[in-house]
Amino acid sequence: MTIKSRAAVAFGPNQPLQVVEVDVAPPQKGEVLVRIVATGVCHTDAYTLSGQDSEGVFPCILGHEGGGIVEAVGEGVTSLQVGDHVIPLYTAECRECKFCKSGKTNLCQAVRATQGKGLMPDGTTRFSYQGQPIYHYMGCSTFSEYTVLPEISLARIPKDAPLEKVCLLGCGVTTGIGAVLNTAKVTEGSTVAIFGLGGIGLAAIIGAKMAKASRIIGIDINPAKEAVARELGLTDFVNPKDHDKPIQDVIVEMTDGGVDYSFECIGNVQLMRAALECCHKGWGESTIIGVAPAGAEISTRPFQLVTGRVWRGSAFGGVKGRTELPSYVEKAQRGEIPLDTFITHTMGLEDINKAFDLMHEGKSIRTVIHF
Amino acid sequence: MTIKSRAAVAFGPNQPLQVVEVDVAPPQKGEVLVRIVATGVCHTDAYTLSGQDSEGVFPCILGHEGGGIVEAVGEGVTSLQVGDHVIPLYTAECRECKFCKSGKTNLCQAVRATQGKGLMPDGTTRFSYQGQPIYHYMGCSTFSEYTVLPEISLARIPKDAPLEKVCLLGCGVTTGIGAVLNTAKVTEGSTVAIFGLGGIGLAAIIGAKMAKASRIIGIDINPAKEAVARELGLTDFVNPKDHDKPIQDVIVEMTDGGVDYSFECIGNVQLMRAALECCHKGWGESTIIGVAPAGAEISTRPFQLVTGRVWRGSAFGGVKGRTELPSYVEKAQRGEIPLDTFITHTMGLEDINKAFDLMHEGKSIRTVIHF
Repeated sequence: MTIKSRAAVAFGPNQPLQVVEVDVAPPQKGEVLVRIVATGVCHTDAYTLSGQDSEGVFPCILGHEGGGIVEAVGEGVTSLQVGDHVIPLYTAECRECKFCKSGKTNLCQAVRATQGKGLMPDGTTRFSYQGQPIYHYMGCSTFSEYTVLPEISLARIPKDAPLEKVCLLGCGVTTGIGAVLNTAKVTEGSTVAIFGLGGIGLAAIIGAKMAKASRIIGIDINPAKEAVARELGLTDFVNPKDHDKPIQDVIVEMTDGGVDYSFECIGNVQLMRAALECCHKGWGESTIIGVAPAGAEISTRPFQLVTGRVWRGSAFGGVKGRTELPSYVEKAQRGEIPLDTFITHTMGLEDINKAFDLMHEGKSIRTVIHF
Repeated sequence: MTIKSRAAVAFGPNQPLQVVEVDVAPPQKGEVLVRIVATGVCHTDAYTLSGQDSEGVFPCILGHEGGGIVEAVGEGVTSLQVGDHVIPLYTAECRECKFCKSGKTNLCQAVRATQGKGLMPDGTTRFSYQGQPIYHYMGCSTFSEYTVLPEISLARIPKDAPLEKVCLLGCGVTTGIGAVLNTAKVTEGSTVAIFGLGGIGLAAIIGAKMAKASRIIGIDINPAKEAVARELGLTDFVNPKDHDKPIQDVIVEMTDGGVDYSFECIGNVQLMRAALECCHKGWGESTIIGVAPAGAEISTRPFQLVTGRVWRGSAFGGVKGRTELPSYVEKAQRGEIPLDTFITHTMGLEDINKAFDLMHEGKSIRTVIHF
């Protein structure tokens, strides 16, 4: 039976979201209806809303960093039951495709093609407004109180984990920590440079601390980021505005040749280059986490790689959602991931445009929307 | 005592080499005088001779793929004796610098700064002609019958190994095999694409065969390369001229998503991009071996890396010369590295310009100069 749901709809690029009542069709075969309890607002939502995302289709319901409770399951769903607590996954885990079976990547491709078009796996949408279809977003659409996802796009988590906090593990925090631990595999005693101290960058600091890095250097043009970053384990803060020379040269000098690992957490291709070039000759590895504008390209002299640097990237921290995300929730519950530090603001869905404003103004780390 | 030596001197960029009699000063502290028995002629020699190499200084004695016999040792030399058979190393191995001690790279930096300027570690040259200094090249200068090298730039090899063959292990052959085995660490059953089937590319095929790759795809615009490549283990030959679409798309299609490993063995930045982009999403790794012209840059969309591809590079195959090169010589002696396949021409030093011509015309794999 189709139900009504409050949702913040993006009717077009660069327009404020409109909170309206949409229709949500029941979950089909292999699908699950989830009541979202809370959701973070992430830069990727803003990126798509800006119209720069080549996969952005409108009208749609954004949001991909949520926590919720299973409300109903469609035919054939076996791994989830009504009442289960879940985190939506924009990177599914089917455990059957070539990618899942490879053991080398978390990039399950089972629902990738339709997800990229804002559709459910059967090629249709579950959302509509005044009879017109509304598109899904990253397979999650957590800016709706009720949303429908494929079973394979939901990680079941312990019921005693606070959804209004662990929702942040649905994207930014896990992405940052996972990039350090799973993708780069930072080793004890190594030096780390983190470009951009937003949510992802701060999470990368936590990851570097977990990995027992000896030195964690943060680079940001906003001096207000320093204090909280130091709380999480940052040892050195560098503001590029304080230096005349290229920032990679500054870091190479302060580390006697460069860092062992670097992370780009912004999505700026010039900084991706700087992050690579501040790595130590012979072994430094740079991991791209940020999402660049459509069409933007990275470049460097090949000599940078031939002399031993490695350039890689990470999506959702290399984390397989259904299998590995529950362990991140447990880490948060044990206090090893201080989610409270990330939550600078909370508000109701009706104020969601304010959450975007705070983010653009650099005043928030994460705003969590409570439904 | 200064001795006389026949040498092919590059008096300036883009000029034929001139075979003249140069003066060679005796080895100083930590240095060794070597009589070169044979030397390969490599594309890197031609690259520097063309004037494009930013480190190229003239007049100099080129050549870096040699085999020789220790003729005299300077003060303090302990690891080599007169009569030892050696292969000169353009990548030294001091075993004492930060790089050697890291265990992560073969890029010893002990003599790097002076070597890059065509000088011995004390900042002077051992070669002169009519009283004017002649510069060293890559720390080797194997186009001279007698040359001087630092002790740490010589690998001692078994005396029963034929110097006129194993000289090729001083650069190209080891570079190609090592990039596959040491740098990329190609695994059994994986698929491999090799861009460029010159000496390095052919050696990479040998490496991929040693690693038991299931499919070895070679890409070259010269159809004459196919036969010898197949002899060494190539399973598929692709000529970009036979296809209208980008070569990376051709390879992605023929491998159902891309290869597990790719290698660029030419030094062309467009092909470096193609080599990355023909790798499989989620895990494909591309290794740059070729040396690009000064100032040339590689580029790609960062999405290529964020979706799991890895971009790296390799110099001298990641091989630590003094420690590991002897094992390559042993492999060649056991027939595991068919060096004869590489040697298409042999000639005396007086004909060395012909060796460059054959290389430029694509008619030779390697010419070996016999002194």
